[in-house]
Amino acid sequence: MARRSIKVSPDVRRRAARIKLLLMDVDGTLTDGHVWLLSQPDGTALELKSFNAQDGQGLTLAATAGLRTGVITGRESAAMRRRAKESRIEFVYEGCAQKIPAYEDMLKKTGLNEGEVAYVGDDLPDLPVMRRVGLAIAVANAVPEVIGAAHWVTPRRAGDGAVRDVVELLLKSQGKWESFISQARA
Amino acid sequence: MARRSIKVSPDVRRRAARIKLLLMDVDGTLTDGHVWLLSQPDGTALELKSFNAQDGQGLTLAATAGLRTGVITGRESAAMRRRAKESRIEFVYEGCAQKIPAYEDMLKKTGLNEGEVAYVGDDLPDLPVMRRVGLAIAVANAVPEVIGAAHWVTPRRAGDGAVRDVVELLLKSQGKWESFISQARA
Amino acid sequence: MARRSIKVSPDVRRRAARIKLLLMDVDGTLTDGHVWLLSQPDGTALELKSFNAQDGQGLTLAATAGLRTGVITGRESAAMRRRAKESRIEFVYEGCAQKIPAYEDMLKKTGLNEGEVAYVGDDLPDLPVMRRVGLAIAVANAVPEVIGAAHWVTPRRAGDGAVRDVVELLLKSQGKWESFISQARA
Amino acid sequence: MARRSIKVSPDVRRRAARIKLLLMDVDGTLTDGHVWLLSQPDGTALELKSFNAQDGQGLTLAATAGLRTGVITGRESAAMRRRAKESRIEFVYEGCAQKIPAYEDMLKKTGLNEGEVAYVGDDLPDLPVMRRVGLAIAVANAVPEVIGAAHWVTPRRAGDGAVRDVVELLLKSQGKWESFISQARA
Repeated sequence: MARRSIKVSPDVRRRAARIKLLLMDVDGTLTDGHVWLLSQPDGTALELKSFNAQDGQGLTLAATAGLRTGVITGRESAAMRRRAKESRIEFVYEGCAQKIPAYEDMLKKTGLNEGEVAYVGDDLPDLPVMRRVGLAIAVANAVPEVIGAAHWVTPRRAGDGAVRDVVELLLKSQGKWESFISQARA
Repeated sequence: MARRSIKVSPDVRRRAARIKLLLMDVDGTLTDGHVWLLSQPDGTALELKSFNAQDGQGLTLAATAGLRTGVITGRESAAMRRRAKESRIEFVYEGCAQKIPAYEDMLKKTGLNEGEVAYVGDDLPDLPVMRRVGLAIAVANAVPEVIGAAHWVTPRRAGDGAVRDVVELLLKSQGKWESFISQARA
Repeated sequence: MARRSIKVSPDVRRRAARIKLLLMDVDGTLTDGHVWLLSQPDGTALELKSFNAQDGQGLTLAATAGLRTGVITGRESAAMRRRAKESRIEFVYEGCAQKIPAYEDMLKKTGLNEGEVAYVGDDLPDLPVMRRVGLAIAVANAVPEVIGAAHWVTPRRAGDGAVRDVVELLLKSQGKWESFISQARA
Repeated sequence: MARRSIKVSPDVRRRAARIKLLLMDVDGTLTDGHVWLLSQPDGTALELKSFNAQDGQGLTLAATAGLRTGVITGRESAAMRRRAKESRIEFVYEGCAQKIPAYEDMLKKTGLNEGEVAYVGDDLPDLPVMRRVGLAIAVANAVPEVIGAAHWVTPRRAGDGAVRDVVELLLKSQGKWESFISQARA
């Protein structure tokens, strides 16, 4: 599973250069798509999510470089909220059966136009936002409909570095990668 | 690991068009086949199961499209019961050392005939039900005996989208997929 | 990752036909080799192990067919003890820095000779027992020294069905597989 | 996924022969790079890490052979501290946003020179230490910048035996492997 070089068309590069806000789906995008449930003695079940260390490093570096970030997800979990803090994710919208209202709320709060927003997703509920943003990205393991709606597909699968691929695309297209990698913190 | 296109013979397509109830095994079919056990200080162990987000999205969409769903499993867990609710799975039969009684109970409750039922499995205890239903499906990682008894084998492995493959097969064969994907909720 | 057919030499087939006791290492043999640790608020950590549903089905079927089974491991965990019960594993030796004493204890308890014992392992501490038993088996992901000491290597990796491969080898070599698969219970 | 033989240049062999202290990153190096978070009913989340049994066996053997070991990580967890004890890791530096201070502290405590230290990492925060040690190693799944800064890249990915590869490189280059494998304990 050698690391593939990131291929980017001039159109994608131009779109990426304008992005100021990176929005992401959670399950299957920022995680590997597994939803783990731990049975408890009282008959309830606790949820476990798996994030990727290289994704987290990328998101932290993005924040240092001034890129704003957010997630929109249909589920709710303390795991996601803790990870958002650790990865310096600014906006966290949970429990969103539909994603457009959260998306429009962030547009209003940030005052950005749609061409300045990127969205990364893997499944059908991501399509409505992907059709509006300036840069729509599918992770490598996205369903065919999402691949078809994307301007760019990440080389790596979700949970295996897909979000890191996105951060590198954005910061390199904006000429910021080289100057910020020395500021990476563990 | 590119997404393979789903190959379906005319016979499978015809069988799939008739299905009104989708039954599934749990471990190794709706999960990736790992049974996780967490040691507790009191000497007991809690069970953890791993479900797939795209499978869940597919099952929810299936319910919206009017397809009924159920699971039959030899194990018992709060994790499975929570996941069933989240994925809108109607029938949950746990602790079934043998699967035929649960199967026949659902036939009676739904009033469906066997040609209207599909069953997805991966291992030997799934064989008796698979030999009776109208559409018997093996996940890609099923044992050889189950592969041999199946009308169709999913492109993807269990826990990596196998159940989503099944839902798409059914809804596409019934001409419902295109009209329902816009109703997907996160 | 297609299922490979199980290749067996006449010598291995002859050795397998004589086995009455199947012994196994745990981590990296009956699990996928990952040792999961969950941090607790009080500064301790709980251990999580991942077993495979098809392995468990095989071990249960082996017990039904009269094959005795046991594990020898350097670690101790409630997870392993629960899984042993679920999979009908008769002997559980935990906390064994060296494996020969446990091995000899089981020889004495069962009254079997070494040619009637098989052992499955993946790493260096498994070598002393592997050099004595009638049938020494390495899982596909074993270290080179263990591969070199084995009469047979499983087609699948540990945690992905390696122990199921072993059970099938034994029961098929003993002419019991076909008659017992119909007795599989979920 | 056959086991690849370990290719080592004469320069790497010479560097490895001098190493007396093996330092490692944790997430993505000693683990597979997944950061698992388990949601708790009180709104907090507990962290779960996944270590590899063959890595642990290698580190324990390294300690037996007199090689000193340590980890430097930006995170803090009871899981890592328990694993360090189990694997006989001598130095544990947690919560280090930057790694050079911990590195220099270990140099001072051990009295070793930089040519006697090896460091294994996968991501940008590992670069400053990698540029100073006698032997800089990248795991197979490291980011391109880390691969580029390494004298050697492990055949296996982190969490799949990468650290075991490193221990074998060091002990074999020092002529100690053959004599110590018989001392492996489970």
